[in-house]
Amino acid sequence: MSRPRRPGPEGRQPTIKQVAERAGVSPMTVSRTLAGGSGVRPEVQQRVLEAVQKLGYHRNENARSLRPGHRSGLIGVAITNLANPYYGTFALGVEEVAATYGRRIILGNTGEDADRETQLVADFIGRQIEGLIIVPSASSADHLGPDRIGGLPAVLASRRVYGLELDTVVLDDVGGAYRGTRHLIESGHRRIGYLGNVLSVFTGQRRFSGYERALTEQGLAVHPELVQRGQQDVESAGAALARLLDSDDPPTAIFSANNRNTIGALSEIGRRIRGGTDPSRLPALVGFDDFELADLSPVPLAVIAHDPHQLGAEAARLLFHRMESTDPVPARTIELPVTLRIIRP
Amino acid sequence: MSRPRRPGPEGRQPTIKQVAERAGVSPMTVSRTLAGGSGVRPEVQQRVLEAVQKLGYHRNENARSLRPGHRSGLIGVAITNLANPYYGTFALGVEEVAATYGRRIILGNTGEDADRETQLVADFIGRQIEGLIIVPSASSADHLGPDRIGGLPAVLASRRVYGLELDTVVLDDVGGAYRGTRHLIESGHRRIGYLGNVLSVFTGQRRFSGYERALTEQGLAVHPELVQRGQQDVESAGAALARLLDSDDPPTAIFSANNRNTIGALSEIGRRIRGGTDPSRLPALVGFDDFELADLSPVPLAVIAHDPHQLGAEAARLLFHRMESTDPVPARTIELPVTLRIIRP
Repeated sequence: MSRPRRPGPEGRQPTIKQVAERAGVSPMTVSRTLAGGSGVRPEVQQRVLEAVQKLGYHRNENARSLRPGHRSGLIGVAITNLANPYYGTFALGVEEVAATYGRRIILGNTGEDADRETQLVADFIGRQIEGLIIVPSASSADHLGPDRIGGLPAVLASRRVYGLELDTVVLDDVGGAYRGTRHLIESGHRRIGYLGNVLSVFTGQRRFSGYERALTEQGLAVHPELVQRGQQDVESAGAALARLLDSDDPPTAIFSANNRNTIGALSEIGRRIRGGTDPSRLPALVGFDDFELADLSPVPLAVIAHDPHQLGAEAARLLFHRMESTDPVPARTIELPVTLRIIRP
Repeated sequence: MSRPRRPGPEGRQPTIKQVAERAGVSPMTVSRTLAGGSGVRPEVQQRVLEAVQKLGYHRNENARSLRPGHRSGLIGVAITNLANPYYGTFALGVEEVAATYGRRIILGNTGEDADRETQLVADFIGRQIEGLIIVPSASSADHLGPDRIGGLPAVLASRRVYGLELDTVVLDDVGGAYRGTRHLIESGHRRIGYLGNVLSVFTGQRRFSGYERALTEQGLAVHPELVQRGQQDVESAGAALARLLDSDDPPTAIFSANNRNTIGALSEIGRRIRGGTDPSRLPALVGFDDFELADLSPVPLAVIAHDPHQLGAEAARLLFHRMESTDPVPARTIELPVTLRIIRP
C-alpha cells in the first residue's frame, strides 16, 4: 500500500532551499507559505506553491529530518455529532486558528459513545497528534486523565469533565437556559416543558439547572412529567414533544436545550398544523442554539444564540497557548456569553 | 514543542505482544481492535483498550518499525464548506468506511477557493496521506493531475474535473434538475427563475442544463433575467431572490440548485410574509438537496432528495478499492440516483 515517492529533478528529495531558489524567494518565505501563508503576498504564495509542486517537495519529510523528535503537525478534534451543523462550524473555527499555526486538524466523531471516544483518543495518540480538542461524550472520562494522555496538551470544548484539570471552553449554559425559561414565564406561561440531554451530560445538567432556577425563583414547580431527556436526534425529539402534547395536561410552552430538540419540536408542531391543529393551541418555544430557518416558525420562538465558530477558535487558542507555554500553568476555563434572540414574539 | 514519550513499565516502548498478554488476547486481536474493532467483541475491545492505555502503547510507532515504507493511516478529505451540514454528513460517510479499513480522515476546508485547495492538497501530501477524497472547487485543476499528486489514489466527489482520469462519484444532477423543473411546469408555472452556482462549477453547469432542458422541451424560453448565479451562502441567496421578486415581471416559481440557495430563498419568503405579503403572491420552490425544517415552508415546496452520507461512503469505497488494486484499472464514475420529494403541494 506504500506508494513510490517522486524524487526531485536530481533524483533526490528536493530541499526547501531549492524550492526557494526556484520561486525566487527566501527559504523563510517558503516555510511561511506552507504554514498557512500569513504575511506572504498571494502572488508570492502562488509562485512558492508552483515551485513546491514542480519539484515534488514534501514538507514533513524534510522538516522531520531537521528537527529532533516527531511533529505530526496534527491537532486531533473529537466531536459528538458531525451531522449537526453546530459541530461543523465549531470544527471550522478550530481549523482556522490551527492553520495560522501551520497545523491541520484530524477529525473524529464519537457519536456520544464513551467506548468509541476512548478508542478515538487512543488512536489519535497513536497518530502522534500534537494536541487534542474534545467535546467529551461522558461525564467521567478516565481516558482523558493525565496518566492516560501523558503530557499531551488537551482542551475540553462545550463540556467540562469533573475531576479533570484541563483547559476548557464552555458556554454560559445556566445563564442562557435561565434567561430563556424566564422569557417564557414573562410571556405568561406557567406549564413549561423541557426537552434536553440527560443529566450526566455536562450541558444537560447545566441547562436543566438554569430552567429549574427560573421556575423556582418565580414560585413555579418543576413538573417531572413535563421533562423529557435523552433525545439526541430530530426524530426522537419530535416523538418526545408528541408525548408531552398528548398528555392530560400538556405544557403551553417548551424550553428546548439544544438545536436537535428544537428542530424536532418544530417539525412535530408543523406536522400537527398540517393535520389541522390551530397554531394557537400549540406550545411556544425557546431553544438553546440558533439554527437556520428559525424564521419560519409557526409558533412564538426565541433562541439562545451563540457562535460555534468562536467556541472552536477559542478552544484552539487555549490549546496553542498551552502547547507554547514552557511553565506549568493552572488549567483555565473560559465561559462564552450567549444572548436571547426573539425570532417571533 | 515535542513532548516526552511515556515509556512502558520497563522503561521502553511497550510492544503489541505485551499489550496482548496483559489483555489476555492474541496480538492479532489487539491489531484488529486498534484498526476499528471489526470482528472483536465489545468487552474484549474494552480489555484491549485498557491494556493499551495502561501500558502507554502507541500503535504507529510500533507499526512503522515493522513495515517497510510509510503508512500514515490518514485519508485526506477536502470539502468546500464545512458549515454546510451536507458536507458534515458527507464526511461522516467517508469516516465510517475509512474506520472499517483502520484509517482516519484528515479534513480540510477549501471555501470554494482554488488557491486554498492547491495549498491544502500540497499540505495533505506533505503529511503522507494514503488517499485523497476531494470535492473540487474549480473546474480545471492542474494540482490534481497525475504529475502533481504522483501515484496517490484520489477520488473526486460530487463534481468531476474534465481532463482528469480519476475515480468519481457524482449525483444525477441533470436528471434531478430536469425532474424538479418539470414538476414546476406541470404545476402550471411558466416563468421559472433559477438560483444556483456559476457554470464553471461542475454541478452548476449540470443542474442548469437540467433546468434548461425541461423548459425548452416544453417550448418555454430560458429568460436570462430570471437566472441568478454565484450565491454561495444563505444571505446572498436571499438577496438574489429579492432581486428577482422586485423585478418588473417576477417569476411565479423558482428552481434552486442547492440547499444554500433554497434556504436563503425560504428565509426571504418568510421575511416578506412577516412584512405582510400574501403567501399566494410568493413563488413556489423546488430545491436540489433535502434539508431540515423543509416541512415549515409557507409556499409550495419540493426537494430533489439524495443521501450525502451515501455519497461519502461510495467515495471512500472507490478509494479503498483503488488503494487495494494492484493492476491499473481505468477510472470509474458512479452516478447516484436522486428522487423528487414533494413536501408541500
